[in-house]
Amino acid sequence: MELEQNFSILIETLGTIAFAMSGTFAAMQKRFDPFGVLIISFVTAVGGGTIRDLLLNVPVFWMHDIFICAVIFIATVLGIIIKYFEKNFQVTLFLFDSIGLGLFTIIGIQKGLNADLHPVICITLGTITGCFGGILRDILLNRIPLIFRKEIYATACILGGTVYLLMIQYSGISSIVKQMITILLIVTIRTLAVKFHWQMPKFYNDIHDGRT
Amino acid sequence: MELEQNFSILIETLGTIAFAMSGTFAAMQKRFDPFGVLIISFVTAVGGGTIRDLLLNVPVFWMHDIFICAVIFIATVLGIIIKYFEKNFQVTLFLFDSIGLGLFTIIGIQKGLNADLHPVICITLGTITGCFGGILRDILLNRIPLIFRKEIYATACILGGTVYLLMIQYSGISSIVKQMITILLIVTIRTLAVKFHWQMPKFYNDIHDGRT
Amino acid sequence: MELEQNFSILIETLGTIAFAMSGTFAAMQKRFDPFGVLIISFVTAVGGGTIRDLLLNVPVFWMHDIFICAVIFIATVLGIIIKYFEKNFQVTLFLFDSIGLGLFTIIGIQKGLNADLHPVICITLGTITGCFGGILRDILLNRIPLIFRKEIYATACILGGTVYLLMIQYSGISSIVKQMITILLIVTIRTLAVKFHWQMPKFYNDIHDGRT
Repeated sequence: MELEQNFSILIETLGTIAFAMSGTFAAMQKRFDPFGVLIISFVTAVGGGTIRDLLLNVPVFWMHDIFICAVIFIATVLGIIIKYFEKNFQVTLFLFDSIGLGLFTIIGIQKGLNADLHPVICITLGTITGCFGGILRDILLNRIPLIFRKEIYATACILGGTVYLLMIQYSGISSIVKQMITILLIVTIRTLAVKFHWQMPKFYNDIHDGRT
Repeated sequence: MELEQNFSILIETLGTIAFAMSGTFAAMQKRFDPFGVLIISFVTAVGGGTIRDLLLNVPVFWMHDIFICAVIFIATVLGIIIKYFEKNFQVTLFLFDSIGLGLFTIIGIQKGLNADLHPVICITLGTITGCFGGILRDILLNRIPLIFRKEIYATACILGGTVYLLMIQYSGISSIVKQMITILLIVTIRTLAVKFHWQMPKFYNDIHDGRT
Repeated sequence: MELEQNFSILIETLGTIAFAMSGTFAAMQKRFDPFGVLIISFVTAVGGGTIRDLLLNVPVFWMHDIFICAVIFIATVLGIIIKYFEKNFQVTLFLFDSIGLGLFTIIGIQKGLNADLHPVICITLGTITGCFGGILRDILLNRIPLIFRKEIYATACILGGTVYLLMIQYSGISSIVKQMITILLIVTIRTLAVKFHWQMPKFYNDIHDGRT
């Protein structure tokens, strides 16, 4: 039990670092100043979880947890330094973003299950926790959220979440193993999708073209 | 009493379908993939009500109600099919949007009255419930919200809400009749406004022209 | 004690007027109609405090307070009239915005302290209260938030908040004096920053230039 709890804290910390860095890199690309970078980094890291906690009407996770704030601050400073010396960082950023997505999706589903919600609502909560940090980041940067441009993003999240929910019913396997399988699955789907240029079928509408 | 409750559920379902379809069409115009369309559809349909429930500090309405999620899912799939075969859909979309606006405004006002709030706050809540789904949709699509471009939108909402609040004091009429009058009023105002190109006076500022 | 409470109400009212007017001017520059201007004005004035109250899980301050709504309405009407006759209003707008920032930052920190939160979380809450009204305003107007373009904004907020927190430990001085010092500090930092073109060092990234 203690091991599982430590694993949960590890997951949350890693996901926070991953999203804080993704926010840091995005804000630096728009040439924000350090405090602007810190705000974007903070919103990206806690945004999804904050909306989840507000929806669940439970205390917002970072309000009583100075540890998360410290993690975000250190990840932001590290991110700034890394980006400064190593400019070609696309691959690492992508990997961080995928891992963060997997980690946060699991936390969201778990919190929904703890509140005795319907499985579909749990997957919705997992998707919100995983995706809305990045969505808020992109809204603040005034661009169409990445999730709507790189389409396998939400798909990976929803698929991974569904598999996790199916696995959870088999009490034989340790929950740590189930969570690692889910994270691996989400990262694998996204990596393969990018490598082989997978795309969901898009809708094309020739009439409204260029008018919106 | 049971009739009124059934009428409330009918109103909420119809409004949800209307806004889910409006989100579906808007996301398809931007050529999102199916999951992106589903997310926009979901946010448009539940966004206004979610903000209202968070402000009222009551449980968020769709969190324990799998029915609403099912309605949104079906409306999205239907919307995708309809849009695919029938491309010239502006008029229907407009009608759906107006009806949804009227329906959700009433729900918001009603919830404010149930919480014993001041009439002005109730109209504010009605406006938020009616308008913020569409505002969130347009923020996600990275465009200035429709409500600020087609100006009779919020005006219809606030006028309809005020009339509803005035009618509510006359206990002689059934509440269903009052709600139908309000919805008809809002739809009529918007339809006439579009048909006859009504506009609220806009502010013109020649100094900052083109600079913002 | 009564004097301090009256001073708090005065601070909140002045900050609300300042931000409502800043929202009014920004919406008029985009040529919104009166109801659009009112909505932007409302969101700018109550946005930061609303997010703060949701995070703290306390009743949202304007929901049971018709006085704040009346203040926003009057400030908006006044703002429209002032802007109509006096078009060159940049300096006044800037001053209003800075004073509102200082006032709201203090209110946010104070509410965090009342909830026994960690000082770092209190400064975060103060920054959210001060900055997110303007951020929401700029998101609705579909532009990159001012706070990320004029960089001394958040910096002034965080510096002022830190000084306020340090002062609060000295029980010798009246809390009104402490609050006035903080507001003066924030306004002074921003005024000097604009006058002498202070800037935080920005990050320049030549590789991704023009690609984002």
